[in-house]
Amino acid sequence: MVSDKVRERVLAVVERLGYVPDAAASALASKRTDLIGLLVPSLTNNVFAEVLRGIYDASEDTPFNVQIVNFRYSPLKEEQLIRTLLRQKPAGLMVTGFDQTAEARAMLEGADCRVVQIMDSGDDPVDLSIGFSHYASAVDATRHLLACGYRRPAFLGARMDPRSQRRLAGFTDALKETGMFDPTRIVTTPQSSSIGLGTQLFADLIARRPDTDAIFCNNDDLAAGVLLEAQRRYFDVPGKLGVCGFNDLEFSRHLNPGLTTIATPRYDVGRRGFEMLRTAIDTPDEAQGGKVDLPAQLVERGSTRRLDSPSA
Amino acid sequence: MVSDKVRERVLAVVERLGYVPDAAASALASKRTDLIGLLVPSLTNNVFAEVLRGIYDASEDTPFNVQIVNFRYSPLKEEQLIRTLLRQKPAGLMVTGFDQTAEARAMLEGADCRVVQIMDSGDDPVDLSIGFSHYASAVDATRHLLACGYRRPAFLGARMDPRSQRRLAGFTDALKETGMFDPTRIVTTPQSSSIGLGTQLFADLIARRPDTDAIFCNNDDLAAGVLLEAQRRYFDVPGKLGVCGFNDLEFSRHLNPGLTTIATPRYDVGRRGFEMLRTAIDTPDEAQGGKVDLPAQLVERGSTRRLDSPSA
Repeated sequence: MVSDKVRERVLAVVERLGYVPDAAASALASKRTDLIGLLVPSLTNNVFAEVLRGIYDASEDTPFNVQIVNFRYSPLKEEQLIRTLLRQKPAGLMVTGFDQTAEARAMLEGADCRVVQIMDSGDDPVDLSIGFSHYASAVDATRHLLACGYRRPAFLGARMDPRSQRRLAGFTDALKETGMFDPTRIVTTPQSSSIGLGTQLFADLIARRPDTDAIFCNNDDLAAGVLLEAQRRYFDVPGKLGVCGFNDLEFSRHLNPGLTTIATPRYDVGRRGFEMLRTAIDTPDEAQGGKVDLPAQLVERGSTRRLDSPSA
Repeated sequence: MVSDKVRERVLAVVERLGYVPDAAASALASKRTDLIGLLVPSLTNNVFAEVLRGIYDASEDTPFNVQIVNFRYSPLKEEQLIRTLLRQKPAGLMVTGFDQTAEARAMLEGADCRVVQIMDSGDDPVDLSIGFSHYASAVDATRHLLACGYRRPAFLGARMDPRSQRRLAGFTDALKETGMFDPTRIVTTPQSSSIGLGTQLFADLIARRPDTDAIFCNNDDLAAGVLLEAQRRYFDVPGKLGVCGFNDLEFSRHLNPGLTTIATPRYDVGRRGFEMLRTAIDTPDEAQGGKVDLPAQLVERGSTRRLDSPSA
């Protein structure tokens, strides 16, 4: 609404001064920002790296800017960060999982923006959701160990957030079906996962239950620690000990032997989750909600192998 | 400024409605937010995980909320995100490195908030800076390979962002000093780092220069790929081939043999970088600026070892 000449002069001054408009004033005026808030429980955990890659690939040529906050597996911190993000009038929110506090859930349900819950499968999403079943994947992994001929499988779990709890439930139920459940072969800790923790949990387990013949770990970090420590102790993997992880991180295929694991669709959760949110923002009059369950596949590699003569 | 009874009733309604104040209105009123904006070039890169852990540990009990944006190694995207963050009137900004565009640099210099540059060491910070010398660390690593008796060292590098370029310069200069520099043993690619890429770059290098006796990789991901692929091909590490990484990621100490590497002070960069910024925000009248260089240590492990009879 000004002449080209004036416009040019204004833009030149804008550039020279490094001027940036005031988002607070714009947001008050438009009641809308280009902010997508993303809440994750961890950024030191390799699992979210692929989710983020999917989100960034999907958001690259859109007007939206993704800003990430990390609640470090603390439901109260998550609640506080949801409050902080909502104050910024985001165009949309991406939240991890279904296990928010009642207060956080109420804020999400009352939010003046679209919300997508990612990484898990649940019956009652706030709005949109996309993820996969941690329980069913753990059942698959456990049945695979039994099909290989392993008869005394153990579970190692760290952090034990709600999604890890569902993996443990899958392991437990798959063994109970066959009468092979032994609670003394379950080792869990609230510590955060790492390869180093995997080496320690393996040492503890083997000291206590040396006849363990397979280990299902609640993620690939622990499983890599188990594999590397078992090899240092001259265990025959997979001949005498099967090792199975969860997530299929990048290193897992490169270990010697390669790590059997559950390939979780993390990239697709991120990419499609962002796309669902964006579509919902662009077409607000469409029907609310939408729930996508993606498959998670067992990837069989050298760390588990069918045994010739399964022991009794 | 209201009675307790009224206050209680208001708070009860606030809770019931999930009410959150409008940040735009608050920011306009106060010209100040509790936002710390953090710009990183990657979140799929393990390197930043520890930096983030340091930042979160330092910020946990402060009023500040850290929001992360990822410019994916694109200087233009970085520039755009600096503009977006400044519009939100942050209390402070944490930016990665010293290699912004001129336009981005001008915005940072003109910013109405404190700025800390992290992860590198440079002569001309915008305001505060904390990091370490990538060049000097690479010189240390290269001299270590020579001290072990390796005589035909190669360099593998991925991404080749400014900090990786400085590592390559350190490798090159350390070899030129001794007359052992051979540019045909340098393999770099703009692809992003991964263990899988390390296996490929190793295969390419060894096909072309099979007498290579040591490899300095510009990060531990590549070095782990080299180590694992070398072992699959029955190379004797460290007897016939020394392998050195950069960063000391969590997996590096657990490999068999452990990976020699440069332990970069990533956690401290994050923690102290946040603390410097916070102090500067709280005491704006103090002298401007401040530059901290942290040491990065060579960690000698089994993947390099002093050879009994160095070859000529």
